[in-house]
Amino acid sequence: MVESTRIVLASRPVGAPTPADFRFETTELPPLEDGQVLLRTLYLSLDPYMRGRMSDAESYAKPVELGQVMVGATVAEVLDSRDSGFAKGDVVLAYSGWQSADVASASTLRKLDPDQAPVSTALGVLGMPGFTAYSGLLKIGQPQAGETLVVAAATGPVGATVGQLAKIKGARAIGIAGGPEKCAALRDKLGFDVALDHRAPDFADQLRAAVPDGIDIYFENVGGHVADAVYPLLNTYARVPVCGMIANYNASGRPDGPDRFPAFYARILTKSLTVRGFIQTEFVRELYPDFLREVSGWIAEGRIRYLEDVVEGLDNAPEAFIGLLEGRNFGKLVVKVAD
Amino acid sequence: MVESTRIVLASRPVGAPTPADFRFETTELPPLEDGQVLLRTLYLSLDPYMRGRMSDAESYAKPVELGQVMVGATVAEVLDSRDSGFAKGDVVLAYSGWQSADVASASTLRKLDPDQAPVSTALGVLGMPGFTAYSGLLKIGQPQAGETLVVAAATGPVGATVGQLAKIKGARAIGIAGGPEKCAALRDKLGFDVALDHRAPDFADQLRAAVPDGIDIYFENVGGHVADAVYPLLNTYARVPVCGMIANYNASGRPDGPDRFPAFYARILTKSLTVRGFIQTEFVRELYPDFLREVSGWIAEGRIRYLEDVVEGLDNAPEAFIGLLEGRNFGKLVVKVAD
Repeated sequence: MVESTRIVLASRPVGAPTPADFRFETTELPPLEDGQVLLRTLYLSLDPYMRGRMSDAESYAKPVELGQVMVGATVAEVLDSRDSGFAKGDVVLAYSGWQSADVASASTLRKLDPDQAPVSTALGVLGMPGFTAYSGLLKIGQPQAGETLVVAAATGPVGATVGQLAKIKGARAIGIAGGPEKCAALRDKLGFDVALDHRAPDFADQLRAAVPDGIDIYFENVGGHVADAVYPLLNTYARVPVCGMIANYNASGRPDGPDRFPAFYARILTKSLTVRGFIQTEFVRELYPDFLREVSGWIAEGRIRYLEDVVEGLDNAPEAFIGLLEGRNFGKLVVKVAD
Repeated sequence: MVESTRIVLASRPVGAPTPADFRFETTELPPLEDGQVLLRTLYLSLDPYMRGRMSDAESYAKPVELGQVMVGATVAEVLDSRDSGFAKGDVVLAYSGWQSADVASASTLRKLDPDQAPVSTALGVLGMPGFTAYSGLLKIGQPQAGETLVVAAATGPVGATVGQLAKIKGARAIGIAGGPEKCAALRDKLGFDVALDHRAPDFADQLRAAVPDGIDIYFENVGGHVADAVYPLLNTYARVPVCGMIANYNASGRPDGPDRFPAFYARILTKSLTVRGFIQTEFVRELYPDFLREVSGWIAEGRIRYLEDVVEGLDNAPEAFIGLLEGRNFGKLVVKVAD
């Protein structure tokens, strides 16, 4: 019998999650049936969308039930297999959640090639976050040479990829992040044209000065005061792919006024804006093979770089996740669960 | 010399316009130059967008300057012509604004055929409002058979055309209007599947009950409490063409809270909505000939009907316009300036 250490949802957070919202448990895994694979988790991905799954508000996916394992993508090693497609020692992309081992159906797994790229990238630039960037930018943002793009959380795996893809398409990329270290990384490591610290008291003025020709694409993944600063600068026919709004994820209830909605809505009208929400799954069938091929190639050529923030040990997953919602991570946040 | 009675913008309204914001003047028109045509106004169109032109807030078109003639589309008779394309007695679509006569450049005019349809329809169902409906619905709304569409101000020329076009495309059309008479007209004259009075205290509940399969297209031309009721009912991948928001046109300043923006924005994300502002001019080159051909045909076949609210006399234009912003018109509002 194999034991799994797992982290379950203990209570639904009101506002920011706390360590008490998570509970550690140890369970014995059942024996394998035909078509199943025994997995040992190597890396667990931590992503902002998980905050939504902790709530029971209506959203695009079902919430995690109380007492259930927290969901999440993982990179895992195959310990045993009763499926002809997988053998002991294979490394796979799985969706085992916050646990150290799992019995998974082979049909939910994708084999990874450790020689092509570090396997943890399957959780970041070559995984869901990277594909969110690729599909949302190309299908909705539709960058044209000479246009100006703005993206926040720009050292994160979505934002970093969005900015670099925009550059590849000939657009000018303005990255927004929190603090001088992240801004330096945007300029020096990720090649953004301009890096702005959203914590600066004069952030809105800095943004205005940085976009003399206005903004053609705002890839929205944060909302909040960044969105407030961006919207007045959007050009006619600007596109706003909306893949997240981390600034609001911990909010509860309806915020106080003034009511920003009428001005926002009026701007959609007067500027002929396209504001389009999306979940990357919408585009998987159409674009995933292109994404893997193109982005792998650009990584190999050094045209796309990525930042990873690796936290050691499953025990530290709750704290790391709480920090993610506060912007304390620096790059794609993964938990290294085992070697 | 020909005299023109004209109505100029006397002051910029704060909130709802009043009669004092308009001033009547009489001027003598200059003699015709080559390429010009002398026009006698038969009908003046009154449309919600004119409220925006009375303000100097940034918008998609320049404001009317103080002392300038109020802008507007007109149907006019040619009294004299120094252009080979137009002859005395022709009836044309012009953009002379709120005045009884005008000297216009021939290149700005389109000749109308009084035998094809009543000439006043060039201001409504066969003019800018009809084309707003046609282009926004087909290009952005993209109605599919079996889908559910909601449109407000549905006895107006945009809403009425939107609903009937949606029916032609096989969708179910829910019309919203103010008061029982307009609702009766939606059902009995315009063929909407359901008509709802937005003034009903339980309007939001009525709307929910009327759309058991949710809403796939919300053609936005009012904003306000109708939008509040519609958004929670929008289906995944729903489309929202935004052509106006008359409920806000008289608003000044930022309204009190609660702040409705975060919830609205979150819904765009979780439902993968497309919210797209537009001005019909964007689509003129691509679609206008199709529009005239198709909608003329559908009118001739009785598949598209229209309601007209004719006010007699230019003197009554200011009051009629003020009433338009309050929803007091019943169908496309035109001023009959001369026989």
